Amino acid sequence: MDLNKFFKAKSIAIIGISKNPNKIGHLIFRNLVESNFQGNLFLVNPNAYQVLNKKVYKNVNDIEQEIELAIITVPAKIVPGVIKDCGKKKIQNVVIITSGFRESGNEKLEDEVKLLLGKFKIKCIGVNALGVYDAYSRLDSLFIPRYRMKRPKQGGISFISQSASMGLAIIDLATTQSYGISKFISYGNATNIDESDILEYLGEDKETKIICVYLQGIKDGQKFIKVAKKVSKLKPVIIVKGGINPEVEKTTFSHTGHLAGSYEVYLAAFKQSNLIYTDSLHEMFNFARILEKTTPSKGNRIQIITNGGGYGISALDNIIKNNLRIAELDKKTFSSLKKQLHDLATINNLIDLSSNATSNDYKIAIESCLNDNNVDVLLLMILYQIPLIDSSILDIITDFNNQKKKPIIVVSTGGEFTDDLRKSLEEKNVITFNYPEEAVSSIKALVDYYSKK
Amino acid sequence: MDLNKFFKAKSIAIIGISKNPNKIGHLIFRNLVESNFQGNLFLVNPNAYQVLNKKVYKNVNDIEQEIELAIITVPAKIVPGVIKDCGKKKIQNVVIITSGFRESGNEKLEDEVKLLLGKFKIKCIGVNALGVYDAYSRLDSLFIPRYRMKRPKQGGISFISQSASMGLAIIDLATTQSYGISKFISYGNATNIDESDILEYLGEDKETKIICVYLQGIKDGQKFIKVAKKVSKLKPVIIVKGGINPEVEKTTFSHTGHLAGSYEVYLAAFKQSNLIYTDSLHEMFNFARILEKTTPSKGNRIQIITNGGGYGISALDNIIKNNLRIAELDKKTFSSLKKQLHDLATINNLIDLSSNATSNDYKIAIESCLNDNNVDVLLLMILYQIPLIDSSILDIITDFNNQKKKPIIVVSTGGEFTDDLRKSLEEKNVITFNYPEEAVSSIKALVDYYSKK
Repeated sequence: MDLNKFFKAKSIAIIGISKNPNKIGHLIFRNLVESNFQGNLFLVNPNAYQVLNKKVYKNVNDIEQEIELAIITVPAKIVPGVIKDCGKKKIQNVVIITSGFRESGNEKLEDEVKLLLGKFKIKCIGVNALGVYDAYSRLDSLFIPRYRMKRPKQGGISFISQSASMGLAIIDLATTQSYGISKFISYGNATNIDESDILEYLGEDKETKIICVYLQGIKDGQKFIKVAKKVSKLKPVIIVKGGINPEVEKTTFSHTGHLAGSYEVYLAAFKQSNLIYTDSLHEMFNFARILEKTTPSKGNRIQIITNGGGYGISALDNIIKNNLRIAELDKKTFSSLKKQLHDLATINNLIDLSSNATSNDYKIAIESCLNDNNVDVLLLMILYQIPLIDSSILDIITDFNNQKKKPIIVVSTGGEFTDDLRKSLEEKNVITFNYPEEAVSSIKALVDYYSKK
Repeated sequence: MDLNKFFKAKSIAIIGISKNPNKIGHLIFRNLVESNFQGNLFLVNPNAYQVLNKKVYKNVNDIEQEIELAIITVPAKIVPGVIKDCGKKKIQNVVIITSGFRESGNEKLEDEVKLLLGKFKIKCIGVNALGVYDAYSRLDSLFIPRYRMKRPKQGGISFISQSASMGLAIIDLATTQSYGISKFISYGNATNIDESDILEYLGEDKETKIICVYLQGIKDGQKFIKVAKKVSKLKPVIIVKGGINPEVEKTTFSHTGHLAGSYEVYLAAFKQSNLIYTDSLHEMFNFARILEKTTPSKGNRIQIITNGGGYGISALDNIIKNNLRIAELDKKTFSSLKKQLHDLATINNLIDLSSNATSNDYKIAIESCLNDNNVDVLLLMILYQIPLIDSSILDIITDFNNQKKKPIIVVSTGGEFTDDLRKSLEEKNVITFNYPEEAVSSIKALVDYYSKK
């Protein structure tokens, strides 16, 4: 389904604008202005004349120009009438923010809306939706003010979230952690466009490299599996499913009007469709980052290089726990490293450069591992607290990473000094983590994805 | 065992001071000066006369004053001689930072050190130790410069870490995240004082409310279990064990010279001793924070209050996953809330105040749950992005939290705006989390601890 106009519309009508700065229509208008949206904006409300010095039309049909997208924020009971107006105006795409339908027990009203959308061949995101955000076109239907939630920069990750609240948490986190995003869609009750339609669209979307999906229920399981199988061949799809436990289902139902279905059924379907599943929002971000930034992995043998023995061991534990393999260096690499490194360095399950490690020791060890066919993934563990590590380590890692020979993942745990160095690497497109356990679980997602390709 | 002088010594000799500012002895001296340590410092090195304008003694026996603690940083082969000097000087406590003993294959040298320590009745933290830090006395034997790793503020959490590298990661994180700590000990090879001795000491220590232990191996299992059982009755003990998988053992052995032992044996021992186990450093901190700050829980029935339905559901899932229970409100509470709250609020498995929630709605809901005997723990989920939540929510939560009726845990996910409000609550002693999953796993640790008391 072509959903392009939801993100790239050049003319938008906000139907349900209000003078009251706390009302949703007003907030959306402000956000579109503040986001520097380049298209034409039109405001509609039968009772208003002007909002923020801009003309307000009584009806969308009073507007002479063509409208590519309508954002509807009127009260629920008026929605059917507004859709008729949109149909008459030949508007083909609407986002309905309004709530008070199936999720509040008003199935009849939602059915009426659905019927009208079908009759006029209108594509609809909603009802009960937070709407859409496109970091490239700056089309922004989210009613959250920018002082409370900044908007993310441009990048390759797109998010689909059924839930509005999880959606805004996701977009706010993405901004804070400087992840570049492409598109965000929170689609609410899925009255006519559902998760599968959006997933299929993002699969084809050139601005989207990675897709993250937060679901509560799935409307049509067969359709979803079919689409997911197709899309996961094109790009990584990471899925988080809320309301996955049977006890939670009654809440999920009241929240979106769809049954959530049982845990096992979902997990099996996700696996069958090659989706990357996690039950943690935090992990969803980590998986998206590693898959977006890192060179594809060719296998699951991980080589750790560390300047802290105990620190390295904590990652080894996680490698075993995640069913990854500890790399066994080629004999040549081993003896060459033994010659080049200082006496306090030890090489067994990991390369422990010890607290005597210099940046140059890392250089020697990284280069050897990149050239060793027994190593698939390099996990660099660096405690920057130890004085002998100087800032030349940043260029060393960046240079090797730019060669794109093997995935290089860096983990560093600490405070301000550590964090500044971590961020410097991130800015140079090196993937970094704060904790060994999250680095390893993310490597697992990376390795699994490429092993199935 | 009385280890008080390791933390409260009024006179310290640094044996192995160097003019070279990158050498360990020099770094420790600088840190003690910069930490504003109030006791007397003496420097010892047979070949130096002055370091940073301070007199250097050729031998510790040339010092006239009594020395309560010696910090030893000389090369390994000289350590036995230095211990004899300390014995002659009647020094009863030494921290040996020097490495190059059992962990590097020099068992003989370590045995010699052990024998000498016994002969002179000297208590020793080390060999191969990072040493100690006391946030109250400012005694600081860590050789990490302060510009690379700030030191944490005063508080109630004490850390024991066998591994130096994990130890410094822990202390650096504690500082960054503003956790107050009491004592930190990284004890290396445990030549005569081991993890059990330190645990026992911290159990009695009045400045320590919570104990966190990072272990790789345990020297004497029976002794450890006996001490752990005793101490865990006095205060919460959280344990993280590195090298827990059999495949990792050979690395653990080369790192500390002790066998790590098998996973199941350890887990059983921890459980038997009522220790709180986690395999994640991140969780260790979360557990310590919640146990330090929160009112004791009387049961495992959790009531969620949220302004985002999907956001609430993600926590419900985690409640089930963690074997906690979803609270079922008393009928009276239910009908009273129905009367007081607005129409869009729904009450089932959770109290969903919806995006129309105001700070006052939270006040109504919190008060009702505090007075409902069917509720043991309150989990407040607040998306501050939604404009109707104003900053009065901070005082509302702080006031209820100060009543100490039931544990109140707040989770908020988002960016800068959200984080500022989160930090304000933390400063007022309210416990907060960034992600629903970490809030719930921490509540699990809290509930489990008090259910066993």
